Amino acid sequence: MGHMFRVTTWGESHGPAVGCVIDGCPPGLALDEALVQRELDRRKPGQAKTSTTRREADLCEILSGVFEGRTTGTPISILVWNKDAKSEAYTSIQDLFRPGHGDVTYQARYGIRDWRGGGRASARETIGRVAAGAVAGLLLEKEGISVKAFTLALGGVEVKKRDMAAVATNAYQCPDPDAAAAMEVRVAEVRAAGDSIGGLVELWIDGLPAGLGDPVFDKLDADLAAAMMGIGAVKGVEIGAGFAVTAMQGSMSNDAMTPEGFLSNHSGGILAGISSGARVVLRLAVKPIPSITIPQQTVDIHGNPRSIVTRGRHDVAAIPRILPVAEAMAKLVVADHLLRWRAIR
Amino acid sequence: MGHMFRVTTWGESHGPAVGCVIDGCPPGLALDEALVQRELDRRKPGQAKTSTTRREADLCEILSGVFEGRTTGTPISILVWNKDAKSEAYTSIQDLFRPGHGDVTYQARYGIRDWRGGGRASARETIGRVAAGAVAGLLLEKEGISVKAFTLALGGVEVKKRDMAAVATNAYQCPDPDAAAAMEVRVAEVRAAGDSIGGLVELWIDGLPAGLGDPVFDKLDADLAAAMMGIGAVKGVEIGAGFAVTAMQGSMSNDAMTPEGFLSNHSGGILAGISSGARVVLRLAVKPIPSITIPQQTVDIHGNPRSIVTRGRHDVAAIPRILPVAEAMAKLVVADHLLRWRAIR
Amino acid sequence: MGHMFRVTTWGESHGPAVGCVIDGCPPGLALDEALVQRELDRRKPGQAKTSTTRREADLCEILSGVFEGRTTGTPISILVWNKDAKSEAYTSIQDLFRPGHGDVTYQARYGIRDWRGGGRASARETIGRVAAGAVAGLLLEKEGISVKAFTLALGGVEVKKRDMAAVATNAYQCPDPDAAAAMEVRVAEVRAAGDSIGGLVELWIDGLPAGLGDPVFDKLDADLAAAMMGIGAVKGVEIGAGFAVTAMQGSMSNDAMTPEGFLSNHSGGILAGISSGARVVLRLAVKPIPSITIPQQTVDIHGNPRSIVTRGRHDVAAIPRILPVAEAMAKLVVADHLLRWRAIR
Amino acid sequence: MGHMFRVTTWGESHGPAVGCVIDGCPPGLALDEALVQRELDRRKPGQAKTSTTRREADLCEILSGVFEGRTTGTPISILVWNKDAKSEAYTSIQDLFRPGHGDVTYQARYGIRDWRGGGRASARETIGRVAAGAVAGLLLEKEGISVKAFTLALGGVEVKKRDMAAVATNAYQCPDPDAAAAMEVRVAEVRAAGDSIGGLVELWIDGLPAGLGDPVFDKLDADLAAAMMGIGAVKGVEIGAGFAVTAMQGSMSNDAMTPEGFLSNHSGGILAGISSGARVVLRLAVKPIPSITIPQQTVDIHGNPRSIVTRGRHDVAAIPRILPVAEAMAKLVVADHLLRWRAIR
Repeated sequence: MGHMFRVTTWGESHGPAVGCVIDGCPPGLALDEALVQRELDRRKPGQAKTSTTRREADLCEILSGVFEGRTTGTPISILVWNKDAKSEAYTSIQDLFRPGHGDVTYQARYGIRDWRGGGRASARETIGRVAAGAVAGLLLEKEGISVKAFTLALGGVEVKKRDMAAVATNAYQCPDPDAAAAMEVRVAEVRAAGDSIGGLVELWIDGLPAGLGDPVFDKLDADLAAAMMGIGAVKGVEIGAGFAVTAMQGSMSNDAMTPEGFLSNHSGGILAGISSGARVVLRLAVKPIPSITIPQQTVDIHGNPRSIVTRGRHDVAAIPRILPVAEAMAKLVVADHLLRWRAIR
Repeated sequence: MGHMFRVTTWGESHGPAVGCVIDGCPPGLALDEALVQRELDRRKPGQAKTSTTRREADLCEILSGVFEGRTTGTPISILVWNKDAKSEAYTSIQDLFRPGHGDVTYQARYGIRDWRGGGRASARETIGRVAAGAVAGLLLEKEGISVKAFTLALGGVEVKKRDMAAVATNAYQCPDPDAAAAMEVRVAEVRAAGDSIGGLVELWIDGLPAGLGDPVFDKLDADLAAAMMGIGAVKGVEIGAGFAVTAMQGSMSNDAMTPEGFLSNHSGGILAGISSGARVVLRLAVKPIPSITIPQQTVDIHGNPRSIVTRGRHDVAAIPRILPVAEAMAKLVVADHLLRWRAIR
Repeated sequence: MGHMFRVTTWGESHGPAVGCVIDGCPPGLALDEALVQRELDRRKPGQAKTSTTRREADLCEILSGVFEGRTTGTPISILVWNKDAKSEAYTSIQDLFRPGHGDVTYQARYGIRDWRGGGRASARETIGRVAAGAVAGLLLEKEGISVKAFTLALGGVEVKKRDMAAVATNAYQCPDPDAAAAMEVRVAEVRAAGDSIGGLVELWIDGLPAGLGDPVFDKLDADLAAAMMGIGAVKGVEIGAGFAVTAMQGSMSNDAMTPEGFLSNHSGGILAGISSGARVVLRLAVKPIPSITIPQQTVDIHGNPRSIVTRGRHDVAAIPRILPVAEAMAKLVVADHLLRWRAIR
Repeated sequence: MGHMFRVTTWGESHGPAVGCVIDGCPPGLALDEALVQRELDRRKPGQAKTSTTRREADLCEILSGVFEGRTTGTPISILVWNKDAKSEAYTSIQDLFRPGHGDVTYQARYGIRDWRGGGRASARETIGRVAAGAVAGLLLEKEGISVKAFTLALGGVEVKKRDMAAVATNAYQCPDPDAAAAMEVRVAEVRAAGDSIGGLVELWIDGLPAGLGDPVFDKLDADLAAAMMGIGAVKGVEIGAGFAVTAMQGSMSNDAMTPEGFLSNHSGGILAGISSGARVVLRLAVKPIPSITIPQQTVDIHGNPRSIVTRGRHDVAAIPRILPVAEAMAKLVVADHLLRWRAIR
């Protein structure tokens, strides 16, 4: 991922470790493990009550690319050991394809899969992305660019207002405290039923200068869309007015310009694939976590009909974990475009 | 664009020509200009009554990579001359930024722009993509894969039924003849008002084998999302149930499996970034064409407040032109993943 | 080719045209066809007496990416029509594999090949590279970087001195006028015998700042080696002391440093893959042109033993044509590294 | 590095660890740590008497991409901890640029460098490449392709015969036992003098099918040249007849073809960038190790003149360590081309 700020992640849920390698990070940035850890801790399950009960220490180690507290320009390798992973819980379903999971498609693609905890398709893979995003964030910070994701809806409960100060005060990172309380109730109901819920995320990129993005094949909006759709649970991405444009007229959807700036932001901060200087606004549709304890109809690897109950994990909503991942992905895209933009100036 | 089936496009609206180069196309495919022309003709303005009145011949020439009617495996260069382009129409607005267009962002990025007809950001750039998509289509055809885009809504008029046989019978490629008639009326109204309208497109990929897509950074859904968001007018992309998942529970959104296949398709044919064998279903939000004859508030390149009227073009809706572009982009993504999949089997 | 300054070439010897697309060229550079033409003319056969008698007009057309005489930052497409190409000359050998040519390997790879004049493997393909190199040269010029290739040996005749002022005075671009005269004689002998000769080229990059090159996978020397070995006739590349290092000791091959700079240049201007600020010095081994009129033993596409005489072309040495190609390739590599270097500063 | 079989390495000489990530490896290959270790052990210093006395355990750990002894198709992460590294030995020279090393160029590029043991430019970086090469070797083995590097010359001692059975019997991997004995003597002399020596390596790729390699920008010979020149100590690469072609005539350098195959192999197994089915033959010029105990003239990071003695390491020749690296790099290039070739067949 990336042309200049390039990131690779590796690791399976129940393998020895997960991690990432970042190549192309400029030298001289102050980086230490505490900084990366701060971002990793935000995606830790158990943080919000919606999440899995598996406790993960997730302590990161920076193995290269940093010398005396500063990046050296060489590849940065970050690793997190997988501790406390009980693969026995998965033994009983190793021959079954869990509905809504990648079990069946991994099998189709590779003819082999690590069935323990989702293997490569596990949410643990996102550790590598979040760690890389923390490094990308250093670049953005220097330029005064900030990225923030928050919850607009969860399990049918929608926010009524956007009090950004409230975001940090609740486990759902929701800008409406009343909605957050209602989400809490909803989550408890759904957990009791053994089911799970989806939701809606909004992400803002502020401080982005005008001029980032290639005009045809690496448009900023296209790269952001790919980054977001590349998050496991995301089934839809929209920018600015998004799907609402389908019923608009041009006289309304066009953002008029004045010497003081745009009068509206239906474009979501991107015109013709290039940032306009206005806030970039994305919204992501997040599907319910597919692991539920309600019995579901499925097949085994031999094609026989079976019933499955995904025990052992009790996540109800992916959103609290997905917010830092979405932010990380956005940071990676922006960091890459920032470096590429510098190259041609 | 692409790792194995690689495509570059080039050309500005009012430059001498537009075109594409396709590198990595397998040898031995039957290819001639008539085949490419057929796809290009579908995006010709004037086809539907919604489109620009500029008549374009758009005759393509294949300049390399084909010998005695078959691809040779070497780069395929396809060119279309720009005839009949009157740049005088744009002289009066060369110093103005058209709202909703990339004028202001190109200026910010490059400090220079070809103001004639949108330059590189013009819809004419899509000629290169459609031509490349026609070549990719040959690969898909051999594998029994087909791609079809059609209109679900236009200017607030929504389809009530999906009679796929009706798609080919109306200018809007709409699967509901009554809706198509209503769209016609709506377009006439909006044209009379000098305004434009957006709409909703659905795209199907049928016959795709299970197993296409990389699991983390080149997921099939991420690549499709980037390809679609990379189309100028698209502001949102969703897959399968899309934004509807935000209010679903896992017991509903998961697609149960039986020996006969999936019982539903909320995933839209892609699980964990890899095709499942079910139909791939995408929906695209298409914004209204930003060129309208209603006066709009804007600034000139010196930052002074101005009013602008985009004369000379009378497009009302981008959708009829976008359908073949969306199909082409999907074909390019699938062709690339198909080749990459072959490499590891 | 390239990460930031990206170039694709296309076209076969006897197809309609050859050309290139350059993506990622910074905006605002003064570019017109005359500038590109100047470089193309240097590789024209018939320039030196060593070359083919096929007269090529090779007039280039810039089809995109330039507006009012300046690059716009969008892809630059350059095309040269193939005129005056007589493919009939090749009809008699269409089923034969010419020794030393790519006929047999193209057939193995693709199962199909354009047998007319070498098809894609023809020296005409280099037109695209030379045109792209001319554009890259604009970037280098702005930074005070110059690239120069010249002949050190031809058909066994070696230069005795390096009078750089003499290079421009003879058809072989040889820095020793006496050697140039002897080369002339040698070429005449070899032509009379229907044979061809190889030679040795040296290439200098001057003015390169210290710091260009990635430390591991995109080392400057590795990229230059690939670029040079990618020229059809080149069978060896060495940098600085090159193969002479095999018999050196470290105390000799190390370049001592003083406040005024390096005391020697055995490294050839590159240390650990990164430019040191000293002149970059490469040498290329160029094989004899494989087309000769002396009968050679070969096989046809069915595997039967045959004898072949390559009529119609009377090139004796590739070197005069290869010098501008080598310069172009070096410029492309340096331009790409220059942009990438800017990105991380 | 690579398009389909992609490899990244990371790690500094005296950082916590070094390693690599391999993405795009086909599933189902039998892989364990013992297999990788075998290759790593071949590059261990102390193996031959020429090498550093630093003892390295270099035990590798496979952290991902393998399940129950087979590759899963997902990224393979391999790590080797850096033990026993004494960076104190480097403290005294941390402000000096060692001649022949990348110290001065890293400083120029990044403005910061890990001065301990060469940092990223250390020979330890090659651990990652050798580990990745071991994985690539699995792919080659399945296709019956083998790669072998051996020593042709060392410190002026040249082989007189090529008895391939003798290669495994001496520390220099030299196909001439008498030459190997003479090399031993030469090494002892040079070590006593505190100096170092260069040499010449030959590398064979056998069993390669005809048809591998892209015709223009990813030629097999260009990719191999880049891979070899990308090895720290390599200053020259030649293929087949190599620099000897400069004095040949076409009637000699062309390889005549018969129904039984080529009558000679001046091309070195590659024609027009594509493998011909004949043995691929490369030769590499390896410079003397720049670390010597003879005092050398240099400057410090402030530009002041200084004298330097590189204590603590007593390597005399890089060749024994470079042989497995050259083999690994060749395997990586071939594995990538093999996968790409499959994609278009």
